[in-house]
Amino acid sequence: MSNTFGYTFAVSTFGESHGPVVGCVVDGCPPGLRMVDAGIQAELDRRRPGSSQYVTQRAEADRAVIMSGVFRGATTGAPIALVIRSTDQRSSDYRGIRHAFRPGHADYPYHAKYNHRDYRGGGRASARLTAPVVAAGAIAKAYLTWAHGARIRGCMMRVGTRRARYAHWCYVRSNPFSSCDARASGTAAQCMLRALLHGSSVGATVVVWAEGLPAGLGDPLYAKLSSSLAHGIMSVNAVKAVRIGLTGMEACGYRGDMLTQHGFLSNRLGGIAGGLSTGQDIVAAIALKPTPSSCNYRRSTSRAGLSVFMRTRGRHDPCVGMRAPPVLEAIAALCAADASLKYRASISGHRIPSQHPASYLY
Amino acid sequence: MSNTFGYTFAVSTFGESHGPVVGCVVDGCPPGLRMVDAGIQAELDRRRPGSSQYVTQRAEADRAVIMSGVFRGATTGAPIALVIRSTDQRSSDYRGIRHAFRPGHADYPYHAKYNHRDYRGGGRASARLTAPVVAAGAIAKAYLTWAHGARIRGCMMRVGTRRARYAHWCYVRSNPFSSCDARASGTAAQCMLRALLHGSSVGATVVVWAEGLPAGLGDPLYAKLSSSLAHGIMSVNAVKAVRIGLTGMEACGYRGDMLTQHGFLSNRLGGIAGGLSTGQDIVAAIALKPTPSSCNYRRSTSRAGLSVFMRTRGRHDPCVGMRAPPVLEAIAALCAADASLKYRASISGHRIPSQHPASYLY
Amino acid sequence: MSNTFGYTFAVSTFGESHGPVVGCVVDGCPPGLRMVDAGIQAELDRRRPGSSQYVTQRAEADRAVIMSGVFRGATTGAPIALVIRSTDQRSSDYRGIRHAFRPGHADYPYHAKYNHRDYRGGGRASARLTAPVVAAGAIAKAYLTWAHGARIRGCMMRVGTRRARYAHWCYVRSNPFSSCDARASGTAAQCMLRALLHGSSVGATVVVWAEGLPAGLGDPLYAKLSSSLAHGIMSVNAVKAVRIGLTGMEACGYRGDMLTQHGFLSNRLGGIAGGLSTGQDIVAAIALKPTPSSCNYRRSTSRAGLSVFMRTRGRHDPCVGMRAPPVLEAIAALCAADASLKYRASISGHRIPSQHPASYLY
Amino acid sequence: MSNTFGYTFAVSTFGESHGPVVGCVVDGCPPGLRMVDAGIQAELDRRRPGSSQYVTQRAEADRAVIMSGVFRGATTGAPIALVIRSTDQRSSDYRGIRHAFRPGHADYPYHAKYNHRDYRGGGRASARLTAPVVAAGAIAKAYLTWAHGARIRGCMMRVGTRRARYAHWCYVRSNPFSSCDARASGTAAQCMLRALLHGSSVGATVVVWAEGLPAGLGDPLYAKLSSSLAHGIMSVNAVKAVRIGLTGMEACGYRGDMLTQHGFLSNRLGGIAGGLSTGQDIVAAIALKPTPSSCNYRRSTSRAGLSVFMRTRGRHDPCVGMRAPPVLEAIAALCAADASLKYRASISGHRIPSQHPASYLY
Repeated sequence: MSNTFGYTFAVSTFGESHGPVVGCVVDGCPPGLRMVDAGIQAELDRRRPGSSQYVTQRAEADRAVIMSGVFRGATTGAPIALVIRSTDQRSSDYRGIRHAFRPGHADYPYHAKYNHRDYRGGGRASARLTAPVVAAGAIAKAYLTWAHGARIRGCMMRVGTRRARYAHWCYVRSNPFSSCDARASGTAAQCMLRALLHGSSVGATVVVWAEGLPAGLGDPLYAKLSSSLAHGIMSVNAVKAVRIGLTGMEACGYRGDMLTQHGFLSNRLGGIAGGLSTGQDIVAAIALKPTPSSCNYRRSTSRAGLSVFMRTRGRHDPCVGMRAPPVLEAIAALCAADASLKYRASISGHRIPSQHPASYLY
Repeated sequence: MSNTFGYTFAVSTFGESHGPVVGCVVDGCPPGLRMVDAGIQAELDRRRPGSSQYVTQRAEADRAVIMSGVFRGATTGAPIALVIRSTDQRSSDYRGIRHAFRPGHADYPYHAKYNHRDYRGGGRASARLTAPVVAAGAIAKAYLTWAHGARIRGCMMRVGTRRARYAHWCYVRSNPFSSCDARASGTAAQCMLRALLHGSSVGATVVVWAEGLPAGLGDPLYAKLSSSLAHGIMSVNAVKAVRIGLTGMEACGYRGDMLTQHGFLSNRLGGIAGGLSTGQDIVAAIALKPTPSSCNYRRSTSRAGLSVFMRTRGRHDPCVGMRAPPVLEAIAALCAADASLKYRASISGHRIPSQHPASYLY
Repeated sequence: MSNTFGYTFAVSTFGESHGPVVGCVVDGCPPGLRMVDAGIQAELDRRRPGSSQYVTQRAEADRAVIMSGVFRGATTGAPIALVIRSTDQRSSDYRGIRHAFRPGHADYPYHAKYNHRDYRGGGRASARLTAPVVAAGAIAKAYLTWAHGARIRGCMMRVGTRRARYAHWCYVRSNPFSSCDARASGTAAQCMLRALLHGSSVGATVVVWAEGLPAGLGDPLYAKLSSSLAHGIMSVNAVKAVRIGLTGMEACGYRGDMLTQHGFLSNRLGGIAGGLSTGQDIVAAIALKPTPSSCNYRRSTSRAGLSVFMRTRGRHDPCVGMRAPPVLEAIAALCAADASLKYRASISGHRIPSQHPASYLY
Repeated sequence: MSNTFGYTFAVSTFGESHGPVVGCVVDGCPPGLRMVDAGIQAELDRRRPGSSQYVTQRAEADRAVIMSGVFRGATTGAPIALVIRSTDQRSSDYRGIRHAFRPGHADYPYHAKYNHRDYRGGGRASARLTAPVVAAGAIAKAYLTWAHGARIRGCMMRVGTRRARYAHWCYVRSNPFSSCDARASGTAAQCMLRALLHGSSVGATVVVWAEGLPAGLGDPLYAKLSSSLAHGIMSVNAVKAVRIGLTGMEACGYRGDMLTQHGFLSNRLGGIAGGLSTGQDIVAAIALKPTPSSCNYRRSTSRAGLSVFMRTRGRHDPCVGMRAPPVLEAIAALCAADASLKYRASISGHRIPSQHPASYLY
């Protein structure tokens, strides 16, 4: 069950980059949730390739078709299966790499493990598999809104080495980079165009932010909310680091947020203490490495073990960070939905804790 | 089963800071593994409190007693239960915090979740629960040595804001800080003594390093080796960030390690590509926040919601990083052992892949 | 994950009786297994409705379409998703029961649980959901043949109260009832025609038989092969009892099969001792209750709690036992495949046990 | 995790017949449950060996010691670990069987699987491992009483071939056989004394009965209440068959219990429809084979594969059925507690279904 994420609210994905479909099965969604197909589609559209010059030109409509679990517009409690048809595969791009391992990609370890590899576009390791995650995340978001009034948002904080300043959510949807800094979008565009020009790519840092979740989500010790967030986030393509809270690896000199009668005085530890949510906003920062595909020749080996020089032909993003926010939001929503359903099972039951026990300031 | 980590090689811990014992059950260890009790004890001694002036003065012998699963010195395939008796509890230290939440600790969310809290020393959220993890990790290490000849080591890279330079493994055991820099130990000592003097504490960065694991460990997409590593590491007390590879969140501008006939030319992505091990060394960096316990008064609230000023009395470490390396090594060993057993199940079976398919340079 | 069966070789089903598709995702199938689509189809055809006058007249082509996990005719190790399109739904048959609970069906407890019910043909509780199980079982059978040369067969031992005599496998496929007794098929036909005439139905007993599995499958104590077999079999519609071995509930006075140099002297305990396979044939007997749908009026209540008299209109089998053997074989194959993959992970590894350590006599 | 049963309310057992302790860890018990140690002990005493002339003369005090998860007399939500010390081992009895497989026991498949066997008293396969299950079941029963007012009872219906008549619960505790028939106890005693005299043993049928559980427990399709019951029950030593409802394998000609305004008119299907509880009593019948240990010489082979004649020396029960009721009740309680906690998570939440929606008659 290595293709399943979560337990109580679980999503299993299937499909390959160049197969006929990618899709998922969402198991555990409570009955009676009104599903607006438009909601799923809106999320998918945010992740969709081909939407601007800065992203891969693979043109997919990315229409999610729900095949089960919904009856008369509402979930029934049965598993929700949905598929997204793939139409614009150009497998011929990948013929050249059939006998060699692209450097930085998962080709080599997949071959070592399975001795059998779907070389077209990375097969199962392709970022195309994040599409069903986004669709599943849209269902989880709908659940969280219904159950807690919670909201999950993400934005790009940094493109390459350029850090966002004067960040505000209001800027995020107004630029093609999901950047939270109005002024950064110019430099981000420059940075990406340069990468495109050089056939190169840049890394990014993305922030995901969840508001409105109650205190007490997560289960000690090995189903902590932070653990499952880190688990899910590390499963996303290109992610190399995850951090809870904004204080960072360098400035981790912070002993905890003080609590007063009126709420917490700060939220530097990211809304999670001892692995459980505190009722504050949950904040995670995620670092993504640059897409390893490159139009420049790089060294690698063939399957026979001979050294080769190769470059990748397929269509790719100059910066995965651009399309990452909806994916990482979806992962966070799936974690929170799973924890929320477990929470209902584990609490004393007769007592419903107040949803937002503490207000908060930043 | 939120107290269980891993599936095929699984460890379940039990116990509380001030209960009579802490312990664990290790399920899935293959039969016929020669267990040297001394190996478990040696690991526990590295984590043991009271061993120098820089760590908590709680004096525990930390003797692990194996209660099942071992017959005539070898594992039988049955679950291995072991307990560690607690002797030096001073619960009276905690009487004062019975009705208030210590800031930065898990007291508040535990109370919100369970409405019932073992206030003595943090109860289940205490770092004392890392002792059985270390013991279980020693078993996992023995398995990895036997199955792959693998070796897992950890060291402290940074105390507070002081970064290690001239790092080498040979220094790690020669200083009480597990620091990999011979010259840093002086400044680390200063830093900690200052923290002790002020009743304060400092953060740390720890590096864990696994050599000798084969290519192909980890299962795409949601049981990636990186995912389960991040999961386990985030479950450890005080961890706020985890990073695979050494390039970091800031410098994540690296497109992947080039592969040649003679092996990889670098290992900046930390030995994991597409979530699977590549046969290179696996490297993870972990950031720990300072111990939230503090002898200075800080703001918090009582259970009744009133603002209070409080300080913590219990005995604590000025820097959790000092005792973290054996714990984080244990987590990495448990992840690798779990992945190794799954790997055996999933490979084609008749073909045993060569263990170290690629040599590597740094 | 209540819609997933198995862990290492896991199948998740989705779909409803009157939804557009039913399907499944098979996760954990090893790479490199040559999948012959014809094999899956042949199994589905054995279960297919509309094939004789004795089964439901719902006419479904039951074509399985593989959507992922297979590349160039072989499995890749990625999850295998397949769907079976439903074409001959007559939901209008079920309009009458929208506000009432059919007696003996799952209508009442589903309503009590979910407060939301897909009343068309039983929704998720329909026996139509056994179609994807049969398809998944065909993949498991292919794996078992490849890995162990094992073979799994089933037959109907008893229709209503008529027990098979002079049983032999050679008769099973020559009659429409999958009966193992050549002479019984006449009385079985009579029995069913009588049931059809009266708008009634009869129960059945089915036997499933697995040859060629090695000794040592199953994991003590709660993943015993007998436990997971019982688990899976009880998940099949209409099953009310399961028995390992042929000695039965009445004659369970048998102390175990004696072992000699030349193999076991009998196989009355069904090839499982202490929950592990012994290398003998594994034999299970399963009792199915009659289809609860009935053309006669029976008492029930409406959703509002009022007493009503109702009869069921939909198209149903007079005896579910007729189509049960392929389903129960599939379940047994899935259990054995799961245990076989776990077995590979748990054995000492360097030693491959001989496949059939003991010959056997009956 | 093959030594863990359940997921939301999970029990993991450890220990061997002749190890220093047997024990378990119960994970998922909600916080705030008042645990009366006496309740656990009372259940253990019902299963305790050495209590009459009809059971094994191994004299164990069977005192359960709780090591974690309970604070000030109430559960905290942390895992509850408990151990039962073994004192009266006579391993010398087993020296003779060190190199041979006892017929009917799990010796042969354990050896085939692990190539390493704890030959003393069956090791992990011993019925002694049911003691921690009984202790865990006592906690589950306490939870069920608190959450639903439910009650679980068991009795012996049949010893050897003697079926109980005039059954009533009032007789169960008044005879040493847990038989529900006052008059049967005489014949049962005869039957067992004859078995003891001949160094033989007899089989039994046990009935387990759960009252007061709400409708809707269990999760379709593969976590049905019937599935997990069958799973758990088949994990118990000596169980070879399980049946839901009282109608049996022979008389499974019953189309379902009719429902009226005033409740169900019968309960022949055992309180489970479509895998979900219906609010009626849940009834399961379980067949146990005779203890395979025998004082008569029987054929077997040595580890080297040579034929031997052997008899078993250890102390055993003439009929396992006598001590089985508390064990099977415990398994049923664990299943119901797990389903009850999952049920809380999956229901719409804002609506609490009425506990006993239908009264019932027999």
